[in-house]
Amino acid sequence: MPHQNSSYGAHPENPPGGATNSTHLRLLTSAVQLFAQRGFHGIGIRDLASAAEISPSSLYHYMGTKEMLLFKIMHDALAKLVRAAETIEAEYPNPGERLAAFIRIHVVTHAVQRYASIVVDNELDALGEDDRQIIVNQRDIYEAYWGRAIVEGIVQGQFSVPDPTITRICLLEMCSGVARWFSPTGPRSIDQIAEAYVRIASGMLAVPAQAPDWTQPPDQFNVRSLVEAVWAISLPSEA
Amino acid sequence: MPHQNSSYGAHPENPPGGATNSTHLRLLTSAVQLFAQRGFHGIGIRDLASAAEISPSSLYHYMGTKEMLLFKIMHDALAKLVRAAETIEAEYPNPGERLAAFIRIHVVTHAVQRYASIVVDNELDALGEDDRQIIVNQRDIYEAYWGRAIVEGIVQGQFSVPDPTITRICLLEMCSGVARWFSPTGPRSIDQIAEAYVRIASGMLAVPAQAPDWTQPPDQFNVRSLVEAVWAISLPSEA
Repeated sequence: MPHQNSSYGAHPENPPGGATNSTHLRLLTSAVQLFAQRGFHGIGIRDLASAAEISPSSLYHYMGTKEMLLFKIMHDALAKLVRAAETIEAEYPNPGERLAAFIRIHVVTHAVQRYASIVVDNELDALGEDDRQIIVNQRDIYEAYWGRAIVEGIVQGQFSVPDPTITRICLLEMCSGVARWFSPTGPRSIDQIAEAYVRIASGMLAVPAQAPDWTQPPDQFNVRSLVEAVWAISLPSEA
Repeated sequence: MPHQNSSYGAHPENPPGGATNSTHLRLLTSAVQLFAQRGFHGIGIRDLASAAEISPSSLYHYMGTKEMLLFKIMHDALAKLVRAAETIEAEYPNPGERLAAFIRIHVVTHAVQRYASIVVDNELDALGEDDRQIIVNQRDIYEAYWGRAIVEGIVQGQFSVPDPTITRICLLEMCSGVARWFSPTGPRSIDQIAEAYVRIASGMLAVPAQAPDWTQPPDQFNVRSLVEAVWAISLPSEA
């Protein structure tokens, strides 16, 4: 999946599959974990080479710069999500079933691919501008699958959602959160978690019998005052 | 709020309010931003001192080590959330109104205190074990306010939630996500976002008229197979 104007695409002499596969895999696996655990800026070339048991110059041979390695990790993670979403969209014309499938896939991958998910979520600003734009576009493409399912569900009368954009963001944030809290030794299996998420999402999206009566703030409740008092800050006037 | 066995509490000779307030404030403000943008491990003492326009030795005088500074940032951010939750719990016996208030406060603060929120979310593992345990306990105390509201709402028949723990996690993750995507130049005000979140949460929690028919996966849909195929991985057998 070559890209013009990106550090990933700019080095066709070092394609991902062009060198020793086991070394490549070891390098990528350890780099993803190190970036997730200590942040991109907290890891040096020597840390990466040492974790992969290769020399810094071999690392450059395999992967180029640290920035190129980060780009590759993020690009690959998002490309896989896009590919899964494309598959699901083609399979499920019904927007509810489709969104449930998106949620299951997203939750499961964020549980089992925790480190890559954390890197994608946290390190966007570590990329150079051209690479950043490619990753942002890729993320937009992925999220548009979710957005289409939500809008189609509304149009077909299956969903009742006052703000489709915020709803999409909420769904994605809560599902991505699995990468931050999931533990394989926890009381729930990944499948149980995914099903719980689908049930919760159905509540967020389904046509309600009636609006619950607690969504309006009581007259005496002033959120701005409490925030300003407790945090000792002044909120901007548009808040 | 002194703590035994913590780096924050262990240096009573350097209390937060004991030195020049403007220097302290400048130091904390720039440290929060640097930790959020480059990660704790990506920032050195010299970066912190330079951003606050003080010498490294002055930085140590004011704040101790980099680890102590991180602990203080996280501890203060969580202490404020706990204090807000305590206030709200005392004010709102009705669990729905209470949870709506928690959501509004959490969303607003995560929009206006983005950097501190990101540091709290991302840097727990950068703390030493004793400090880490204090922050985890503090976070647990905060989340227990949300948990009590959810359980009370279920007991009183106001909420219908199959898994209160996962619901609490989903709510917190989607609300905390505001720190990652909010922009003051975006199309929605902070208040509009908070109200949208409350409406979305009400859908997640309200007693439904009937279960939507798309929460069960169709027979032919196998989430494990698709994940294993697209990501080229083997899922653990308990997934």
